[in-house]
Amino acid sequence: MPRHLHLNAFLMTTGHHEASWRLPESDPFAHVSLDHYVRLAKIAERGTFDSLFLADGPQLWSSLAQRPAGALEPLTLLTALATATEHIGLIATASTSYNSPYNLARKFASLDIISGGRAGWNIVTTAGREAARNFGLEHEPAHAERYARAGEFLDVALKLWDSWEDDAIVGDKAAGVWGDDAKIHPPRHKGTYFSVEGALNVPRSPQGYPLLVQAGSSEDGKEFASRYAEAVFTAQQTIEDARAFYADLKARTAAVGRDPEHIKVLPGIVPVIGATESEALAKEQELEDHIVHRHGVANLERLLQLPEGSLELDRQLPADLPPESAIEGAKSRYTLVVELARRDRLTVRQLIGRLGGGRGHLTFAGTPEQVADAIETWFTQGAADGFNIMPPVLPSGLDAFVDHVVPILRTRGLLRTEYGPRTTLRERYGLPRPANQHVQPVYA
Amino acid sequence: MPRHLHLNAFLMTTGHHEASWRLPESDPFAHVSLDHYVRLAKIAERGTFDSLFLADGPQLWSSLAQRPAGALEPLTLLTALATATEHIGLIATASTSYNSPYNLARKFASLDIISGGRAGWNIVTTAGREAARNFGLEHEPAHAERYARAGEFLDVALKLWDSWEDDAIVGDKAAGVWGDDAKIHPPRHKGTYFSVEGALNVPRSPQGYPLLVQAGSSEDGKEFASRYAEAVFTAQQTIEDARAFYADLKARTAAVGRDPEHIKVLPGIVPVIGATESEALAKEQELEDHIVHRHGVANLERLLQLPEGSLELDRQLPADLPPESAIEGAKSRYTLVVELARRDRLTVRQLIGRLGGGRGHLTFAGTPEQVADAIETWFTQGAADGFNIMPPVLPSGLDAFVDHVVPILRTRGLLRTEYGPRTTLRERYGLPRPANQHVQPVYA
Ligand SMILES: Cc1cc2nc3c(=O)[nH]c(=O)nc-3n(C[C@H](O)[C@H](O)[C@H](O)COP(=O)(O)O)c2cc1C
Ligand SMILES: Cc1cc2nc3c(=O)[nH]c(=O)nc-3n(C[C@H](O)[C@H](O)[C@H](O)COP(=O)(O)O)c2cc1C
Repeated sequence: MPRHLHLNAFLMTTGHHEASWRLPESDPFAHVSLDHYVRLAKIAERGTFDSLFLADGPQLWSSLAQRPAGALEPLTLLTALATATEHIGLIATASTSYNSPYNLARKFASLDIISGGRAGWNIVTTAGREAARNFGLEHEPAHAERYARAGEFLDVALKLWDSWEDDAIVGDKAAGVWGDDAKIHPPRHKGTYFSVEGALNVPRSPQGYPLLVQAGSSEDGKEFASRYAEAVFTAQQTIEDARAFYADLKARTAAVGRDPEHIKVLPGIVPVIGATESEALAKEQELEDHIVHRHGVANLERLLQLPEGSLELDRQLPADLPPESAIEGAKSRYTLVVELARRDRLTVRQLIGRLGGGRGHLTFAGTPEQVADAIETWFTQGAADGFNIMPPVLPSGLDAFVDHVVPILRTRGLLRTEYGPRTTLRERYGLPRPANQHVQPVYA
Repeated sequence: MPRHLHLNAFLMTTGHHEASWRLPESDPFAHVSLDHYVRLAKIAERGTFDSLFLADGPQLWSSLAQRPAGALEPLTLLTALATATEHIGLIATASTSYNSPYNLARKFASLDIISGGRAGWNIVTTAGREAARNFGLEHEPAHAERYARAGEFLDVALKLWDSWEDDAIVGDKAAGVWGDDAKIHPPRHKGTYFSVEGALNVPRSPQGYPLLVQAGSSEDGKEFASRYAEAVFTAQQTIEDARAFYADLKARTAAVGRDPEHIKVLPGIVPVIGATESEALAKEQELEDHIVHRHGVANLERLLQLPEGSLELDRQLPADLPPESAIEGAKSRYTLVVELARRDRLTVRQLIGRLGGGRGHLTFAGTPEQVADAIETWFTQGAADGFNIMPPVLPSGLDAFVDHVVPILRTRGLLRTEYGPRTTLRERYGLPRPANQHVQPVYA
């Protein structure tokens, strides 16, 4: 089979551009409209995307003045979307720092069953003091600590998902025996962060467990990904950086004894599409014109861990920013933003403009051909197994991608032309169903 | 408006009778079949029920040998059912002992939005060591401690649900102002069990918050219900007990300054329906014949906190059982079972038969007329505001109720004949939408 692109639709209320909500087409209540999301899901299915994805954090992300804040909880929303779609994968973000394994494992198993094997989990450790303070902590746990907890969380979750063998249910009505207790394997886990005794109260799901996705790019993040992740979302500004990241991650994955084909790397791209290049650039400019810069300054100060009022709009970033190692929040995003500003000698105002579209993800404005070219280049030159598509405005930006870029990708043989029979999310990504850790493989 | 019955459909896999799964009609995989639950929800909507309800506990409830174990997580399943139904309320059980307020408040707010105001929360404190051990605890927290935590949990959850005023979203595109930060009220809660700083990341939902339902009947349980509950599920074996419970709960509710009309009492009933009385009794007998008694013995020993092997099938319960005050698990259920056994001088075998149908809820076998009579009597004589309908076998038992008992109740003017326009769950139960604690009522 030819190698195909994997496409994930990263959905965000009225779009990824921070000013998208101000455009005439945008609904200020989109973030709480099931209909809005059903519409987006159907567009993505028309484009034969592998999956949908929703970001998340257990805190209010921004001031209300700034932009749409608050959203439907992703697992809940994706469950509703499961019933409105047939083929597309459903990837929910959930935090290992602010959940307990038993509850979260159940929810993903339930979604996987309800969706016929289409659930995915974007595993995040959640940066920021705001989230910590919603869960009884004074301070954000240290970055290394968060990843240590994440590792143990995954070990426990995998034990829970494997606590039922696939054929534990017998259903012998005559004998009065519903299931086989010998096929239940309670985790009996006692660790540093968690103690979990009993088996899950949900049978093993169609995929065994949700597709495991990861989205942090720090050293700890990449270590974690190499051990557990089957797909990785990442923000990369240049093809050189993306190739280095790709090669690094595949090598790390091989180094821990896994098949590097079993981890798919998906950089984000914000495609601003126009019939002509100048139309695309005008669209980008229109969005930039709607940015309220004072919010952008506050966001940058928070990311860079600077006191309020440190940054000036028409000057460059201060020269004496701390190294990544001193950052306890989102490490890799910090470095990406600082490097981008330095490389292109951007003022704060320009930097805000560049980040406005994709918060550090690559923004690419052009014709459908140009967008398809960029995607093909990255895909064929060792920078990506697919893309996280982040339309600047929704729904129109997703419509544009599906109507104009997808046909080109199909013509070039880079993308499936139809879904074919129903299958699991993991199969869409070309990955095998995981064996149960309690079951010996049978050799012929 | 005439006083109408409130009907709640308590759904449980193949039915409430523990042997229901062994009948020819039953699907051993019903517990993980969305189609099964969609079918049940549609039958209940045909019967113009107020709501559906799913029980829950974060542990495997029984051995697999015994009966269908494990289930879809209720909030997930009800979200899927929200998209398959239009009018019926969706009540999910969730534990205050093994959840954090921020996560749970978000999920209920999200379901309430997605369902157009049809979410309800059956608030439980979760008895049993098994659950505790899935969340890092060695022992079950003491009964009083669980209810103390539940009270604080509710206070925090209510603060979170009120952390957005209803009109916090402005959507002023021209000015670039999406929302009004002055209408956000972070809880800043620091208590015994929880510290929660920030506002919820979901706007206030159609109902303000889910309908609050409670299902424990101990002293602490009733105290809790009188403060928070808008509907109460309860297991009552006789009309005398039910009337006493009803009067007690209404009085307690009035005593804390609430309108006693704003707490609806719904005893459970397991209706075994036949065209003739003898047909109904034969159906009951058929179910009893399918009971595997050794499982029943084990369950009773666990409820009564007796060592394994203490009970003998053809003898009565031991005389020296401890008082309710010594029980840390499900207190009111304990007392109900012991009193039932003593009152009717039941052997363990007979007791298991009596509990097989409804685990302590009233089982009533008869013709549709007889079932309707029993319901009418309890409803008009101060024992109930409605009923928790617990069909012994599903779907057939719910079909029988809706096809044969519901028309009689409608003819007698006790039940709505149609839903009318879409409305919230709270309105179905005749309750007012709660005001936001941060908003002063406006007097004309
Ligand atoms: C496409 C993409 C989506 C992400 N979504 C989330 C998210 O929803 N929630 C979250 O807490 N982190 C999310 N992250 C990860 C944060 O960027 C991450 O917490 C941060 O980079 C810290 O990880 P690191 O320090 O390992 O880089 C996402 C990252 C990427 C690339
Ligand atoms: C109809 C009904 C349904 C219930 N469902 C649950 C449930 O799903 N999960 C749970 O932990 N307790 C549930 N309970 C409550 C338990 O019976 C309760 O935990 C037990 O009675 C302890 O409360 P108490 O000690 O205040 O009586 C339910 C009770 C009733 C009457």
